[in-house]
Amino acid sequence: MIKILDNIRGIVTPAANLPMWELLIQESVALAFEGHIIKEIGPPDALKRRYPDAVRIDGENCWAFPGYVDPHTHPVFYKTRELEFEMRSAGKSYEEIAAAGGGIRNSARSFGEASYEELAELAYRRISTFLEYGTTTIEAKSGYALTLEGELRSLRILKKVAKLLPITIVPTFLGAHEVPDEYRDRREVYIELLIKEMIPQIAEEKLAVFCDVFCEKNVFTVEESERILRAGLDHGLRPKLHADELNYTGGAELAAKVGAISADHLLQISDEGISAMKDAAVSPVLLPGTAFYLGKPSYAPARKMIAAGLPVALATDFNPGSCMTQNMHLIQTIAAVQMKMSPAEVIYASTLHSAKAIGVDGEYGSIEVGKKADITLFDIPNYKYLPYHYGINHVRKVIRHGRVLK
Amino acid sequence: MIKILDNIRGIVTPAANLPMWELLIQESVALAFEGHIIKEIGPPDALKRRYPDAVRIDGENCWAFPGYVDPHTHPVFYKTRELEFEMRSAGKSYEEIAAAGGGIRNSARSFGEASYEELAELAYRRISTFLEYGTTTIEAKSGYALTLEGELRSLRILKKVAKLLPITIVPTFLGAHEVPDEYRDRREVYIELLIKEMIPQIAEEKLAVFCDVFCEKNVFTVEESERILRAGLDHGLRPKLHADELNYTGGAELAAKVGAISADHLLQISDEGISAMKDAAVSPVLLPGTAFYLGKPSYAPARKMIAAGLPVALATDFNPGSCMTQNMHLIQTIAAVQMKMSPAEVIYASTLHSAKAIGVDGEYGSIEVGKKADITLFDIPNYKYLPYHYGINHVRKVIRHGRVLK
Repeated sequence: MIKILDNIRGIVTPAANLPMWELLIQESVALAFEGHIIKEIGPPDALKRRYPDAVRIDGENCWAFPGYVDPHTHPVFYKTRELEFEMRSAGKSYEEIAAAGGGIRNSARSFGEASYEELAELAYRRISTFLEYGTTTIEAKSGYALTLEGELRSLRILKKVAKLLPITIVPTFLGAHEVPDEYRDRREVYIELLIKEMIPQIAEEKLAVFCDVFCEKNVFTVEESERILRAGLDHGLRPKLHADELNYTGGAELAAKVGAISADHLLQISDEGISAMKDAAVSPVLLPGTAFYLGKPSYAPARKMIAAGLPVALATDFNPGSCMTQNMHLIQTIAAVQMKMSPAEVIYASTLHSAKAIGVDGEYGSIEVGKKADITLFDIPNYKYLPYHYGINHVRKVIRHGRVLK
Repeated sequence: MIKILDNIRGIVTPAANLPMWELLIQESVALAFEGHIIKEIGPPDALKRRYPDAVRIDGENCWAFPGYVDPHTHPVFYKTRELEFEMRSAGKSYEEIAAAGGGIRNSARSFGEASYEELAELAYRRISTFLEYGTTTIEAKSGYALTLEGELRSLRILKKVAKLLPITIVPTFLGAHEVPDEYRDRREVYIELLIKEMIPQIAEEKLAVFCDVFCEKNVFTVEESERILRAGLDHGLRPKLHADELNYTGGAELAAKVGAISADHLLQISDEGISAMKDAAVSPVLLPGTAFYLGKPSYAPARKMIAAGLPVALATDFNPGSCMTQNMHLIQTIAAVQMKMSPAEVIYASTLHSAKAIGVDGEYGSIEVGKKADITLFDIPNYKYLPYHYGINHVRKVIRHGRVLK
């Protein structure tokens, strides 16, 4: 069955053959979908003549953008952590809270109290919120259980939610998110558990595409991270890395060394790290919402990375501790304001470049013939208006795989 | 007719007899409204027995908060200024853009191109967005025309919109927002126009409650501001002031000297300014969304002001140049993160304290018997969750003057 999306102001999309500061804008066009796929883009009248029986989708005079691709989220957890947010407003830092047993370990402690059903329902609800704000693809990590069973359960929940909700979920194993309480004095045993039990079983069940590590001072060292990522590679899980966020550790250089698909955060990245990522074609995923939410004085050096030719991507980092939001649109504004990215650049970074950062840019991240018909219709006068008018949900309709959701 | 709001998780409200860090939380209660007014708060069963014929409003298991009161907005303008936003993302500062003829003068230039109908429709739509995000009262300023006719038109539009939309609008005359192009070389003539023509006519038509001035380096000096504010006072318009935002000028001290109801922005306020405001009972209205949006490295010293016993208020500063958002909830998060205000404090600051900052705390800003029934129902587990989960609209329903809007 063919569907035609018409009555749009136009299409705003990145294109693989254009630079990051130049969007492809097409006006006086409509789109034809066949099943999940964009079949044709052309003049509305021509499309209607060619497909006289097509079902019509009304674009309501909105601009059609590619659905947001959010390449870094943590949606599977039990309790929310508003008390830690309140502690930070009282002056405690994220690191102080973590050192006192809060943070990720706090989440890991509560994880075991929840039933599968509770966790699944919470994940379902949290992930459905992404769709309301125009995101049609997310990468989603485990990492709030830190036990074999719990990590498996987290990834199985993601698989289940991907079947129930009209959203694409790219799963990542992040058992190396933190060293859990019971292994604080014997971290090597936890690393062995990750390498010898968790990774093989997750790979065997095909529950994840990527293996990720929180490489950070007081979490996992560069050496430990490398061992874990190489174990993942041995089992077919491509590396991804939380790198150089709170402190410089050489995480970006490690990402390049192991052939990671992306290195994420990068507030403290070195110039050598930028060069290494460029040479190894590692995507930088920047999470300015997290820097904002933690009240950090500075952000990742996006302009340096863009100048170096890196395909900078943006993500929400949705998680209960350091960035509790699913709103990619707001992340675009934070990126423009704090990292001096242009409106065109923040759009590339949250669609085509973010799709590339999780290996799905062949199907997602731009509006072009042959790609999946994942389109968000924004009720705005022009694309520059998108990051400009912030905190307001401009989504009028979301189309995922050719089907209208909102 | 009596209405009963029941099936709520509870009420979260500031109270005039409590400190700013302590909210009044009432569970197992319902509310009875008579006309516009909260008539009674009590056990649901007792209220239903007392008013058996009451119309029921379903609280949908949400928490009832006072509707937000936004005490500083600029909703009457013609063209949006996303091009200046893009220029800032390219590294230009707000001050550079203003000095080059952009900023407020840019808005003033386009104002004259619009018809009354266009301006009124735009203002209507922009103001209706406040309601979607839980704000039921706004202070709204003129100040993007900078001509006698245009300023009158702006205030008449606000009066009109207040009749059409279920929102309370407290109007402020801000002809002294900038010196317009045609008076750059004879600013004294513009000040005379403000004092001798605009203020008298606006007061005569009762189009404004307050008279405001943008007291700032390269805009209006402290001396000029005082003359304008005193002229307003002579005609019954109480002073309000944009003070000590980009540079310290002594604006807070001036606000105290002339008996302003509030001084707003205050990023560069002095300790003397804080004391003076305390002694003269001037409310501080902080606009952290603006500091965020302009990429400022620091924010107003909220903690110092709270420590000094000032009733700190928050506002969006909704305007097309330096803060394009109507979302008070997001402002709460920015305030918590950047100014270290607690969840309870940001709630006081955007309800009871913000009502006080525009002189309407007798009727608005808290949920108590005898006040107007302006209530926002939030679908959240507890009040601390409100600033914690940001960028997402948690509003389930808005009640204004006892009537359900959403």
